[in-house]
Amino acid sequence: MGVIYFNNVYIAKAASVVGKLENEGPLGEYFDLFETDPYFSQDSWEQAESEMVQRVINLLLSKSKLKAKDIGLLLGGDLLNQCTATAFAAQSLPIPYLGLYGACSTIAEGIIIGGMFTESFKVNNAVAVASSHFCSSERQFRFPLEYGSLRAPVSQNTVTGAGAFLLQNTPAEVKLSSAVIGKVKENGITDANNMGAAMANAAVDTILRFFDETKENPCDYDIISTGDLGREGSEIAAELFAKCGLDLCGRLTDCGMLIYDYEKQDVNSGGSGCGCLACVSASLYFDKLLRREVKKILLIGTGALLSPKTVLQKLPIPSVAHLIGLERV
Amino acid sequence: MGVIYFNNVYIAKAASVVGKLENEGPLGEYFDLFETDPYFSQDSWEQAESEMVQRVINLLLSKSKLKAKDIGLLLGGDLLNQCTATAFAAQSLPIPYLGLYGACSTIAEGIIIGGMFTESFKVNNAVAVASSHFCSSERQFRFPLEYGSLRAPVSQNTVTGAGAFLLQNTPAEVKLSSAVIGKVKENGITDANNMGAAMANAAVDTILRFFDETKENPCDYDIISTGDLGREGSEIAAELFAKCGLDLCGRLTDCGMLIYDYEKQDVNSGGSGCGCLACVSASLYFDKLLRREVKKILLIGTGALLSPKTVLQKLPIPSVAHLIGLERV
Repeated sequence: MGVIYFNNVYIAKAASVVGKLENEGPLGEYFDLFETDPYFSQDSWEQAESEMVQRVINLLLSKSKLKAKDIGLLLGGDLLNQCTATAFAAQSLPIPYLGLYGACSTIAEGIIIGGMFTESFKVNNAVAVASSHFCSSERQFRFPLEYGSLRAPVSQNTVTGAGAFLLQNTPAEVKLSSAVIGKVKENGITDANNMGAAMANAAVDTILRFFDETKENPCDYDIISTGDLGREGSEIAAELFAKCGLDLCGRLTDCGMLIYDYEKQDVNSGGSGCGCLACVSASLYFDKLLRREVKKILLIGTGALLSPKTVLQKLPIPSVAHLIGLERV
Repeated sequence: MGVIYFNNVYIAKAASVVGKLENEGPLGEYFDLFETDPYFSQDSWEQAESEMVQRVINLLLSKSKLKAKDIGLLLGGDLLNQCTATAFAAQSLPIPYLGLYGACSTIAEGIIIGGMFTESFKVNNAVAVASSHFCSSERQFRFPLEYGSLRAPVSQNTVTGAGAFLLQNTPAEVKLSSAVIGKVKENGITDANNMGAAMANAAVDTILRFFDETKENPCDYDIISTGDLGREGSEIAAELFAKCGLDLCGRLTDCGMLIYDYEKQDVNSGGSGCGCLACVSASLYFDKLLRREVKKILLIGTGALLSPKTVLQKLPIPSVAHLIGLERV
């Protein structure tokens, strides 16, 4: 399958919730809600993440003036084992639920699948959501936080954040125009502290597939943004594009590089996590589209499909990147 | 969203691969391939599961006389942390990939989403796959196998098996006619050794939603089969149906109860795992449809959306059940 073209799919609303560090970063003013307590008043970091997912969905419903029963389909996922942050949030909602796992590409995957259901009129209102939480992720993928481990310079900081989007088949200001579903790629990277490098290949492959098939000019897009390649992964992606001879017209950026201030915040190579693309696109990018500061953007969700066990088993990190095209109507 | 009706979606082929215990069970003759080595000639159980997924996809391609490049979309998932069995299999294939997490309901979820893509003609050939492996699951969800832990009578045996389906929009012998996407339910069960009980509620809710909306008579279906409620969960489901006044006309059965011989095989309450519904429906049920032994069946994928961590945190087990209706053309 090549490029998917959507007819009649709109993103009517978006909502974002983040943690303290993200709120203190350069995009702080764009986020809808923030929470300074990493526990979100819950008993564990896992439940905190679930609470964050509930808050972002409730906020989206409130912005949309809809009730949970008006939503026909919830699609989402997260990084926790067995995607429990989202599943536990879903159990509080009377909405049919499809659990997804695309690692940090999940919000793009949710928007693509949700777009299919809304385009076909099998559902009128669908919600796509994705989240990550620094504390629940770090202890699952790396070390207990209490160790205070030193982090590698190329490592990234898991974003505490969630983003949610309301998809509809009735006209709204932002349109879902196109998509590319990624192929799983690996390029020999086995270092779980360097996921940007692992994912760069997949991102480049997906973007090349899009421009190869559409014959569009990257200059026609105002923003071409990957999800969480971070500084290291973005440099590799830029090199790969140069080698492949695709000039992205200076439009390429990365949510993981935008969400924190490298100089003032101790985040090494930038942000990562399912929440990174989700909360940045639900705030900064959606806002720019609404205000007509930009007209057409491409978002490329980038996911590293490793597990702590495959890392211990020294297997290379497979990655995937899903692209969505958004357009101001 | 209520019942989804599909137009023009067909399941052209199905394939199954199982382990030794499953092959020795009552359905042995129906499975396409079996492997006596739990390692599938790999270095770890996780890689063994990934190898099983590759084999079932390759077998499906071979039965379909298609090459991997002819497949536009691969949808799948498994029980391993971060769904690595499927992702690692996908990296060997040049096929756009959507990772799903619906626990043991995953194959039903994959068929529903794959059906959406094929119905819309955005893709012509899609493959849905799901797998589980006794050894990789047991050590992740319960105890190291070397402990030789005694198992609770209500516990189920994770099926070593994988099933794959080829979805097309050109007429074939079996049609995907309808679907219901499940809502996440929990009924207070916190015992990870009793997942049948946790999932029964979700299965009953989804089946009730189907018959409530369609006003069809359960007697019109030849088989109404849940995925892996096992003996305990199936008894609870039967009680709940009786309480709700829905007579299932003796059609209700469960793949987890069919796959093993309770008397001769030490499996406690039956089979479970993503592979259970996947390999039983890709063999026994698909075969019955092809041979015209049955005309219309309903399959209800049942998934317990817990993680080992939520169990340690003593949280109730949320569950989901997705229904698909298949019909002999």
